[in-house]
Amino acid sequence: MLITSMDNPKIKEYVKLKQKKYRDITGKFIVEGMHLVLEAYKCGYIEEVILEQDEVLALDVPIIYTTKEIIHKISTLDHPVSVLALCKKVPESSFLGRRVLMLDDIQDPGNLGTIIRSAVAFDIDTVVLSPNTVDLYNPKVVRATQGMLFYVSFFRDDLVSVISKLKEDMIPIYGTHVEYGTSVFDVRDHHSYALVVGNEGSGVHENILDLCDQYLCIEMNGNVESLNVSVASSILLYELRGRR
Amino acid sequence: MLITSMDNPKIKEYVKLKQKKYRDITGKFIVEGMHLVLEAYKCGYIEEVILEQDEVLALDVPIIYTTKEIIHKISTLDHPVSVLALCKKVPESSFLGRRVLMLDDIQDPGNLGTIIRSAVAFDIDTVVLSPNTVDLYNPKVVRATQGMLFYVSFFRDDLVSVISKLKEDMIPIYGTHVEYGTSVFDVRDHHSYALVVGNEGSGVHENILDLCDQYLCIEMNGNVESLNVSVASSILLYELRGRR
Repeated sequence: MLITSMDNPKIKEYVKLKQKKYRDITGKFIVEGMHLVLEAYKCGYIEEVILEQDEVLALDVPIIYTTKEIIHKISTLDHPVSVLALCKKVPESSFLGRRVLMLDDIQDPGNLGTIIRSAVAFDIDTVVLSPNTVDLYNPKVVRATQGMLFYVSFFRDDLVSVISKLKEDMIPIYGTHVEYGTSVFDVRDHHSYALVVGNEGSGVHENILDLCDQYLCIEMNGNVESLNVSVASSILLYELRGRR
Repeated sequence: MLITSMDNPKIKEYVKLKQKKYRDITGKFIVEGMHLVLEAYKCGYIEEVILEQDEVLALDVPIIYTTKEIIHKISTLDHPVSVLALCKKVPESSFLGRRVLMLDDIQDPGNLGTIIRSAVAFDIDTVVLSPNTVDLYNPKVVRATQGMLFYVSFFRDDLVSVISKLKEDMIPIYGTHVEYGTSVFDVRDHHSYALVVGNEGSGVHENILDLCDQYLCIEMNGNVESLNVSVASSILLYELRGRR
């Protein structure tokens, strides 16, 4: 199908998906660029590919051909790509597993995406997003995951109730604290752990810290107050995973 | 001094500093927000503070009071802060030291800033920026460093010539390669090392890889192609630093 009018209802729908409200209502979102489109395809989440009219793409999904201008209108990038895809959201799963990452109000989309990419790299079973963590389907989050959001099990829930379930399963809960904490290097159990990382400005909430079994920190130069939250999370996950 | 006109020559100068060209000509740049202003102050790089007229700030530097609108005009933030500062650039130093980080065409400002923050945390003596690495004084870089750019020794130079100096000093040169590489965990010399990390899309240039003594990688889940470059750099620097 070729669409050349901005007023086409499909195009209007795609443009609306820049807004969280419409992603929530429809359960759909847009991925941008070949790498993300191929990851979404491999994992079976594509409903339609949106392709610049002169391009060719051999994928077994419906393809909408359209103009550069219309792709520019749908895209959130300054330098738009020639391929996008309409995807359905990844279903949430309440499965917890024994290696859990809990995100306590992460606000920056780039940080959330980068953390998810690292969570997959370091074998996290489940990522739990606190209710106020930024939307997983924000275009900047999706881009920063580099497609890894299709490979992770996750759900959004109140962290206090998740922690009580983890405690029933005897999984140690590690908080992160820049001032107090044991070096993550000294953690010896690489099979079960639940790590909580906090908001960029204010860290992990006090009421969540109170529920943690231990605080972890990263050994570093004493002049530095803290690391970027996606860097800190990734180093902690790297160490907790241990050698295989 | 109180300035309320957008046409004031000082204000025009500050606004121009959003552009690399003017930062290069003048050797000056703007930092935004209290945290960065205080770090710049501690390190002696502030020439003038630019403060919203109702605010008070007890720093021993010239203060320009101005309106919210003018601050908004100078600022690069969507939600501007109430304090900015005009700073002089940090002088480049050709000192190399024995723990060196080389950046081969890092393009994303957020990545460069985050890497510099981690370089300070993990005791890097010198950061070398390749000629095509993004400008250190790009406002997004400055923000992502969280003020750590005032604490690092750095210079911009061709990496090939820097590597030949490092080789004279018998410092091992580690390249990063996602496919081939020894786990960074197995590196035993935590006193001298030079790490090269590469561009977000294309990695380290072939001619630079050819000059490396060894390639390093990070152990991770086989389904994941790569990590975000600032995350990967930080994990490598964390491991190379070793325990203290």
